[in-house]
Amino acid sequence: MITSDFSQHISRQFNTDLEHVLQRALAMGSLIEQQLNSAVSALLEGDTQLAKRVVLSNRLVNQIEVILNEECARILAMRAPAASDLRLVLAIIKASTDLERMGDECEKIGRIASRLTTQERPVDKYRQLKQLGENVQSMVNETLDAFARLDSSAAIKAARRDHLVEQEYEAIQRQSITLMMEDPRTIRQFLDVMWVARAFERIGDHSKNLCEHVVFLVQGTDIRDQLIEDIDPAIPIEQLGNTHPS
Amino acid sequence: MITSDFSQHISRQFNTDLEHVLQRALAMGSLIEQQLNSAVSALLEGDTQLAKRVVLSNRLVNQIEVILNEECARILAMRAPAASDLRLVLAIIKASTDLERMGDECEKIGRIASRLTTQERPVDKYRQLKQLGENVQSMVNETLDAFARLDSSAAIKAARRDHLVEQEYEAIQRQSITLMMEDPRTIRQFLDVMWVARAFERIGDHSKNLCEHVVFLVQGTDIRDQLIEDIDPAIPIEQLGNTHPS
Repeated sequence: MITSDFSQHISRQFNTDLEHVLQRALAMGSLIEQQLNSAVSALLEGDTQLAKRVVLSNRLVNQIEVILNEECARILAMRAPAASDLRLVLAIIKASTDLERMGDECEKIGRIASRLTTQERPVDKYRQLKQLGENVQSMVNETLDAFARLDSSAAIKAARRDHLVEQEYEAIQRQSITLMMEDPRTIRQFLDVMWVARAFERIGDHSKNLCEHVVFLVQGTDIRDQLIEDIDPAIPIEQLGNTHPS
Repeated sequence: MITSDFSQHISRQFNTDLEHVLQRALAMGSLIEQQLNSAVSALLEGDTQLAKRVVLSNRLVNQIEVILNEECARILAMRAPAASDLRLVLAIIKASTDLERMGDECEKIGRIASRLTTQERPVDKYRQLKQLGENVQSMVNETLDAFARLDSSAAIKAARRDHLVEQEYEAIQRQSITLMMEDPRTIRQFLDVMWVARAFERIGDHSKNLCEHVVFLVQGTDIRDQLIEDIDPAIPIEQLGNTHPS
């Protein structure tokens, strides 16, 4: 679907450079997906070692972001890409920021998971958090898949899942407050539940941002000012216009 | 201090374009500073109208981010800037994301401020939140000042204030939990206090990111992988190296 055909480049080196940063960004995405899966497992299975590994490996994510940004800056400086090639580099720069912040949220979940394993687990074993975590995992998975295939329809579809994530997040917040009020001895524990839910919700937000970068990359349209939920699914993606003042 | 001298450009139009995006980014920064000041006033003075204005005007901030990104993409496509000019454009793209997210946090504070005005105010009138808010205001003010002057020493100095913001944030979280446990009827109110504190803390984080963009712009060094707190103030800024693997 992308208008750029990498094979059209006269310079083979340029071609390789663009492929290289795209592949690195996708690899960064896979790493984040693994971090998220590990964070969810550590939380639900009370696995302290796994939680610690999530926290430690976030340093690697940060390093990849720095390297990726340098590589993108080098391509801009040396190759002065235009049109869809330029959009690819810009989308990767933006995506790296969102991926890095998703890594930070995974680290937070890892830290809280470590703490929660030392406490008595509730009877429902964080059933609602499990459901929220699974929904966020699916959203991130679909988002990265849309990114790998440079498929803007799939990106818009993935971004729409954010609505469900928000609903589940709100439900967990309400339920946690009710349970805290019923038994104030559980305040600390349910605050941790609320912080984990918040981290999941933010990962969903960043995943939605990633979807917007994919649409920008493929369509050349910045849809951040339009709410993705507001976009009528019946409208062909090609007709999505830029609604902000210029 | 910046190595680029805008007057050296052969093309006067290019010169004007760079000046234009820099000025727009600084104007976006001023708008965020106003939003933050209004959010703090709305919260401390219980001014519902002001709180609502903060929430409504965040839409403008989002629009400015989209326009700024388009303008930067146009400069990259048309002018293919190099060296410090390229860093300026990249720093502005990165800065616009942080400024936009600071706007989102101000909006959150505005929403909670609206809600808190309907409740009985505590005797200390949110003294600790006031202190945290003031510290974040000073940090943002210093950061934007460093950005306007393209002064990396001032940016590192401003970034170091984040440590104090984090300490105050942690203190508010601890105190709020204690007060909730003492009187569970206050749970909802102190959760709001915790969310506001969290929003201030995140504004501090984004302000620190902005400082890092200023250092990258001026020095050509990405210091995100080094903790700003770890940088010995005795080391001349010129000697700050890039520590990540390449």
